[in-house]
Amino acid sequence: METDIAALRSRLEAASQSHLLQLWDTLDAGQRQSLLKDLARINFEEVNENFKDAQQTLKNASEKIDSHLEPLLPEVCGSVTRTDPADIAKYHLKGLTEISNNGVAVLLLAGGQGTRLGVNYPKGMYDVGLPSGKTLYQLQAERILKLQRQATEQSGKACCIPWYIMTSEHTKEATQNFFKKHNYFGLQAQDVILFEQGRLPCLTFEGKIILESPSKVALAPDGNGGLYRALKEHGVLDDMTKRGTQCVHVYCVDNILVKMADPVFLGFCLNKNAECGAKVVEKTVPQEAVGVVCKVNGRYQVVEYSEITLSTAEKRAADGRLAFNAGNICNHFFTLNFLKHACDKPQETQLKHHVAKKKIPNVDASGNTVKPESPNGIKMEKFVFDVFQFATNFAVWDVLREEEFSPLKNADGAAKDTPTTCRNDLCALHRRYAIAAGAVFVHADGTPYTDIQSKQNGKADGQSTHDTDDTVSCEISPLISYAGEGLEEVKGVKLCPPVILELSPDSKLDIRQGSQ
Amino acid sequence: METDIAALRSRLEAASQSHLLQLWDTLDAGQRQSLLKDLARINFEEVNENFKDAQQTLKNASEKIDSHLEPLLPEVCGSVTRTDPADIAKYHLKGLTEISNNGVAVLLLAGGQGTRLGVNYPKGMYDVGLPSGKTLYQLQAERILKLQRQATEQSGKACCIPWYIMTSEHTKEATQNFFKKHNYFGLQAQDVILFEQGRLPCLTFEGKIILESPSKVALAPDGNGGLYRALKEHGVLDDMTKRGTQCVHVYCVDNILVKMADPVFLGFCLNKNAECGAKVVEKTVPQEAVGVVCKVNGRYQVVEYSEITLSTAEKRAADGRLAFNAGNICNHFFTLNFLKHACDKPQETQLKHHVAKKKIPNVDASGNTVKPESPNGIKMEKFVFDVFQFATNFAVWDVLREEEFSPLKNADGAAKDTPTTCRNDLCALHRRYAIAAGAVFVHADGTPYTDIQSKQNGKADGQSTHDTDDTVSCEISPLISYAGEGLEEVKGVKLCPPVILELSPDSKLDIRQGSQ
Repeated sequence: METDIAALRSRLEAASQSHLLQLWDTLDAGQRQSLLKDLARINFEEVNENFKDAQQTLKNASEKIDSHLEPLLPEVCGSVTRTDPADIAKYHLKGLTEISNNGVAVLLLAGGQGTRLGVNYPKGMYDVGLPSGKTLYQLQAERILKLQRQATEQSGKACCIPWYIMTSEHTKEATQNFFKKHNYFGLQAQDVILFEQGRLPCLTFEGKIILESPSKVALAPDGNGGLYRALKEHGVLDDMTKRGTQCVHVYCVDNILVKMADPVFLGFCLNKNAECGAKVVEKTVPQEAVGVVCKVNGRYQVVEYSEITLSTAEKRAADGRLAFNAGNICNHFFTLNFLKHACDKPQETQLKHHVAKKKIPNVDASGNTVKPESPNGIKMEKFVFDVFQFATNFAVWDVLREEEFSPLKNADGAAKDTPTTCRNDLCALHRRYAIAAGAVFVHADGTPYTDIQSKQNGKADGQSTHDTDDTVSCEISPLISYAGEGLEEVKGVKLCPPVILELSPDSKLDIRQGSQ
Repeated sequence: METDIAALRSRLEAASQSHLLQLWDTLDAGQRQSLLKDLARINFEEVNENFKDAQQTLKNASEKIDSHLEPLLPEVCGSVTRTDPADIAKYHLKGLTEISNNGVAVLLLAGGQGTRLGVNYPKGMYDVGLPSGKTLYQLQAERILKLQRQATEQSGKACCIPWYIMTSEHTKEATQNFFKKHNYFGLQAQDVILFEQGRLPCLTFEGKIILESPSKVALAPDGNGGLYRALKEHGVLDDMTKRGTQCVHVYCVDNILVKMADPVFLGFCLNKNAECGAKVVEKTVPQEAVGVVCKVNGRYQVVEYSEITLSTAEKRAADGRLAFNAGNICNHFFTLNFLKHACDKPQETQLKHHVAKKKIPNVDASGNTVKPESPNGIKMEKFVFDVFQFATNFAVWDVLREEEFSPLKNADGAAKDTPTTCRNDLCALHRRYAIAAGAVFVHADGTPYTDIQSKQNGKADGQSTHDTDDTVSCEISPLISYAGEGLEEVKGVKLCPPVILELSPDSKLDIRQGSQ
């Protein structure tokens, strides 16, 4: 031990991080053990390298990259609103066929802590208050199940979409227990694969690693771009190879409308022979704070709203749309080969660290933990989309926000991205599915709802004083319909909200309605 | 008097409205006088005609008119995002020239009661909490002033944009007093012309005129389409003719961003030789509850969201935009000749009554006023845009919502169209004007704001922890800039919010900033 400490001291000395042992003499054996364990996992040379990069990043933070931006070329892009329905059907078939060949995996980024949402458990376990009470995890599990069944129906052979879930130290255990408790919502346990993203030490503005207690290093998750290191370290790429995975759909946990392994998106990317693809929604207002997919110095990249000037954000193409309008919604397509390439050290180490100044609790000279009032250090994160730069064959598929994107970010009371907006967006979409299938929504007194409702406490349309209600409560189980298909049975059926269309135990449509 | 009553009784008898005198014997002289006055102003034959139409309207209320809809032809339409800047400059010059020739009047629809907003005074008197404390009326007055000055500067001759304001019984007196008190905000008193819209009796579902007290008929304003009758009755058309008015810009009081007499819109309509035009914003989401301008059975019309099915609302053109996407924002252009035509009896009487079921306080058999729990009768209104049907030369000018439309409808706490959203939308627009002119927004500590701000309590961009603030407070007096022009002086100037750019008494730019 003596020698170990001496060796450690000199390693720390060399890395200018000696302060990490400054309280060593005050620690008991257990605390020493704990600190040594933390320190053993840190690559100090790498940390110091990262800090140098971070300094550069901070220095350049106010620099704008406008002059390096190029819009996407039309041949890379496709749009659900401008594609012939026959072509969409072709993409769908191609995607579903790939699924039935066991070629598709989905990968969930679920390391977030839900701080803004105000919960201390993983976001995926959140119930936004749907009539069914389903959580985000359950909705997602059922979408996978349904797709597997559809692919099997179409091909006649059993298939599986493995579900890889990247958790963090904050979410791993709770997520694992939750899935076990719920029997993986009908999926096979071995096809739900959890792995944990890494952590990086927090640094002072001078590059010193911060201790959050005398025996504990301040560590923070390494961002959703920690994915690439974790994929390799935890053998996930090998597992995918073994299963025959050809392509992976990567997405974030918080989007209640997410179409996992969406066959149309898969088919579009496959059709383009893309190694990497992004599903996007149109950015329509220049000052909207959203990252956009474009090219920077000839390479694909997501450019954050803070990296460009308003004047660039306001540029328009000849068709009147914003020139940079491919709004990133964290829905990515990767071939396994591309993922492997991106995870290789020469590429992975090129992914830059994004730097955030933070208030980081830290230990003072007498060993007390202090909570700072203003930012006292930095956290470093990699971003999942930064591998776009390695892609030569790229594809961008533009979908409708109201059909595919409604993230859960804030607690109720915020202006957007709350449990209420998620619930309303899902119910509104499912009601549109039902209307398109020919269902008729009626009030308890039998009078019909209008298709389009005012959300204001405003004038009624003269026909009914009901029609100023808020969003109509309507939920369709993913086990009944993945994206609006297969609802022929509700044609002409009167539905009185709240409505749930569920799959009965004997695999029939079960319509639950009214205030029961 | 005896005979008068006898004559009235038989008139009422003939119109099946005898119940209006059923409490006559219980009234004192004053009350009798009051009731007779109310009844004298009612054209019972017309009321009964209206009721017949209303019954038909209610019967057809759930009927959809989808099959009669046609999209607008491209030659009728123009868009600010798809027009060559040189052409926009041409329109602007044409519009400004018409103003300088005294050819343009503006007409404000200000009869609304502000019930949803929760105030008991006219909406135009509302202060949404801008740094300057200006009311909607003041902002509008200053926009007129500025345009007059610009037109005069350009032409070298004095000119005037008369401002006609249609009030209702609820808003006339308060509006009149408010303008007097504020010296018409710098306008000439004789160029601010108030007139009052009419009222119509409320009816039971059986077509009986409702008494709200034994001596008072229940009357309600006749809708913003009451404009046409009022224009004629109050001699407004004659006044316009006398002043040499060629065209009129009609708009609603509640849009804080309204560009009154917008020279570009005027020039576009004049260039098209349109007799009638609408400024619209693009409807981008099918289920948005907004009326759209289109053709129905070959005539121009605003179709309400309740009149069509979702399937029609979802239709898209080849360019991916919604087929029916010209969202009405109550910003209309009329030539005076067209207005005169529309106000003529053969046309005016063709304007249909829109019918709303309402809870209408009414008198019971013993003379007590009862407030009903559920709708007990109907109110009838005409709509200002229903004259579109008379237009053969029509023009539709598509503008950006974030630049031109932010209505004040609800009290704070509602999801949209509140004092807060109005204030934020105006400040965001004015900040963009300042940024485009080269101003630099900085925090109190001198660090710059990013151009585009996140509105969430989310991650900062790494550069500054400030940049998660809400909308930056920045207001530019209309007397300084009508729509972003003429801000050369702020180039390179550091502005620390809250910022007001005001016109000083000696007509210089006065920059007020910081938390003073």
